[in-house]
Amino acid sequence: MQLSQSGAKMAGVSGLRSIMDDVAASTAGASADDWLNLSVGNPAPIPAAREMWRAALAESLADDFGKASCHYGPSRGSQVLVEAIAGYFNRRYGWELGPENIVVGPGSQMVCFAAASLFAGPGTLGDRRVVLPMVPDYTGYQGLCMHDGGIVGIAPLIQREGSHRFRYALDLDALHRQSDIGMLLVSSPGNPTGRALERSDVDALTALAVERDVPLFIDHAYGSPFPQVAEVHTEPMLHSQVVHCFSASKAGLPGERIGFAIGAPQYIDALASFMSNSVLHAPQLTQAALARTLRDGQLDHVTHTAIAPYYRQKKRFAEELLSELLPKDIDWRMHSGVGGMFCWLWVDHPWFDDVTLYHHLKERQVFVVPGRHFFVDPLSSPSLGAHATQCFRISLSADEKVITEGVHRLAEVLTELRVGSADMHRHASDVVGAVL
Amino acid sequence: MQLSQSGAKMAGVSGLRSIMDDVAASTAGASADDWLNLSVGNPAPIPAAREMWRAALAESLADDFGKASCHYGPSRGSQVLVEAIAGYFNRRYGWELGPENIVVGPGSQMVCFAAASLFAGPGTLGDRRVVLPMVPDYTGYQGLCMHDGGIVGIAPLIQREGSHRFRYALDLDALHRQSDIGMLLVSSPGNPTGRALERSDVDALTALAVERDVPLFIDHAYGSPFPQVAEVHTEPMLHSQVVHCFSASKAGLPGERIGFAIGAPQYIDALASFMSNSVLHAPQLTQAALARTLRDGQLDHVTHTAIAPYYRQKKRFAEELLSELLPKDIDWRMHSGVGGMFCWLWVDHPWFDDVTLYHHLKERQVFVVPGRHFFVDPLSSPSLGAHATQCFRISLSADEKVITEGVHRLAEVLTELRVGSADMHRHASDVVGAVL
Repeated sequence: MQLSQSGAKMAGVSGLRSIMDDVAASTAGASADDWLNLSVGNPAPIPAAREMWRAALAESLADDFGKASCHYGPSRGSQVLVEAIAGYFNRRYGWELGPENIVVGPGSQMVCFAAASLFAGPGTLGDRRVVLPMVPDYTGYQGLCMHDGGIVGIAPLIQREGSHRFRYALDLDALHRQSDIGMLLVSSPGNPTGRALERSDVDALTALAVERDVPLFIDHAYGSPFPQVAEVHTEPMLHSQVVHCFSASKAGLPGERIGFAIGAPQYIDALASFMSNSVLHAPQLTQAALARTLRDGQLDHVTHTAIAPYYRQKKRFAEELLSELLPKDIDWRMHSGVGGMFCWLWVDHPWFDDVTLYHHLKERQVFVVPGRHFFVDPLSSPSLGAHATQCFRISLSADEKVITEGVHRLAEVLTELRVGSADMHRHASDVVGAVL
Repeated sequence: MQLSQSGAKMAGVSGLRSIMDDVAASTAGASADDWLNLSVGNPAPIPAAREMWRAALAESLADDFGKASCHYGPSRGSQVLVEAIAGYFNRRYGWELGPENIVVGPGSQMVCFAAASLFAGPGTLGDRRVVLPMVPDYTGYQGLCMHDGGIVGIAPLIQREGSHRFRYALDLDALHRQSDIGMLLVSSPGNPTGRALERSDVDALTALAVERDVPLFIDHAYGSPFPQVAEVHTEPMLHSQVVHCFSASKAGLPGERIGFAIGAPQYIDALASFMSNSVLHAPQLTQAALARTLRDGQLDHVTHTAIAPYYRQKKRFAEELLSELLPKDIDWRMHSGVGGMFCWLWVDHPWFDDVTLYHHLKERQVFVVPGRHFFVDPLSSPSLGAHATQCFRISLSADEKVITEGVHRLAEVLTELRVGSADMHRHASDVVGAVL
């Protein structure tokens, strides 16, 4: 079989995919109790969210089926959804969106995939890249780009806070040194850290986008106005150089693949053409259902009364658990953030390695996600040093019993790894001693 | 705004898209009776098909919603659908498919888009192209390719039959002269002609695919085993070099975007990885619904009792209508075929031009599709001559009243165009005479 250059890239299995395949293969057939799966990227099963989507889909099936499911639809999105989106954002933020500002896709990942093909890659101005202004960020971004080396992640500045906290900050100097930007792409609040861009961050990134005449894509999958898995205080703002991406996935509907982007017509038109040439359009019944939840206020209501409180409480629970159970004399740190579906942990010791942790926890029937996969190029950033292989992600979607038992075993494994490392050092000294 | 090379290609609006935008803009707001729209690519509203899909979606919503819609799914396709597909084809054709032979996508167009990116474009063996073994073929194929000139259509041999029929045949010599094949892609039965590949055609194309070590994609969207919009007599056959594509769209569910491919694991794995990197996976509720209709025999039942008879009858009706109404002294010809959603007509006169026809019919509130858009490069094939601009497509999805009135006006316009052309010639002679 002969693959094209882009084919070789796109047929590849990422490191994270191997991990997820390992999780799937291990847990398949086993009873849910056999494994403590803290690796899941699936949103938590929140009854109010589930019931909202079930009802909206049932109503759409009853009322819209013939018009929606039995007809091809516009590549920009169905008229009913595009109007509902415009109405919702115009009411909420006082924007003046028309259909020309909106494109719907089968998931916001597909919108970002289209953007990467449109705005990055070989062109008349040379090879341009998708640039993530700050890693770690969503691992799915690394698969968007159809060219080897087509995506770059800027290493963050690391700020330690207190005894068990830290946070990343944008390294704007490093970002400005990047010469070949085709588009900027950032999740806010971010996966895996839960960090949200501050207004000053957005302003700095927007200024760079203007300077380079490239689009800045901000992915609000976890954020505002919905589903507020992480509660942010900087609302999206319209700007001719910024494309905002939104998704129903983390609001509880990941399986139906629906997302949309809002921005200036020049970017939106290109994205709509791309949709037309590839998937044709997003699934129509789900478009009708999303339109209902936007129009009748259900999505806002469920966001505020169920989704945001659920993750807020869950994050607090996990923070307390980690503080209580993880060894006090190990320098572990959790990323500070506004919430989110995950805890992002850093063990700042030379003996710690994320993949080793993964294997040791797997032996104890626990799955977490090694952190290196969230850095585009974890081993080659001199400013990061070992940091990119000293982090891991724990999901808050599992229930409290699973998280509690998982963190218990994590604490045991951390202790074991530290002792093992001390033994090895002792053993190494012995060997050196014997040789001398 | 700066687009990459592939971005400039993918952001482009095809000639056909301009036509469809013109149709949409003209008919928007107008009552359906104002326009006779014979341009539609939408499948006909067949009550039994509609009811099958509505019921299957309703059952899936009742039984599968939590597991399907509220969870991310496998990129290869949901377990339940992949198993249903394997079971269906294994029962029907005695195949021995496993999950490794199957990939589901959000529409078979997306599967073909992925294939074009994987198997064509710049690579270590030079630039490889998507080659359509015989044009005219589905216009959507032309948008799949992210590189300028990345797709080639081989002009057909034209065989006149009787007084008002013709058919295309593969020009295998021309196809073999094509040196840079990355993949072969053909719809069978084809849009717009309804022609199905014979066994000998499939064998010849497969032999070429083997010789060049490239995949042959056969798109069965209109064919066997479902929905038999055109009834074919050559069933799909398994071969390591052939990937078969199937779709629920023409069986009545175009709006929900579901299709799948069957082939050798090397091709299927690459397609599944591409899905994972772009759309993640196809919508899950629709996957569950399709699985139901495959398992319980409903799709077969509706195919045989409703869909196939509907189009068979409709095609016969249109053939009789055309024979009766079109001017006897004009050399118009319809493509012979096994059925299909369309009539493909050729007016073999130098005075005839498909785009001129389009505009004249539009003035009479009738829409048809100019034929040139179904040829990849209509104006540059010396073997085709003017043929590529002397054809047009009429849809059979409209109801009989609309088709009847539309064909009446078509007959008037054809007469008018011929007279106009004779006038012009007479006028041209007058002018020449005056000058002399």
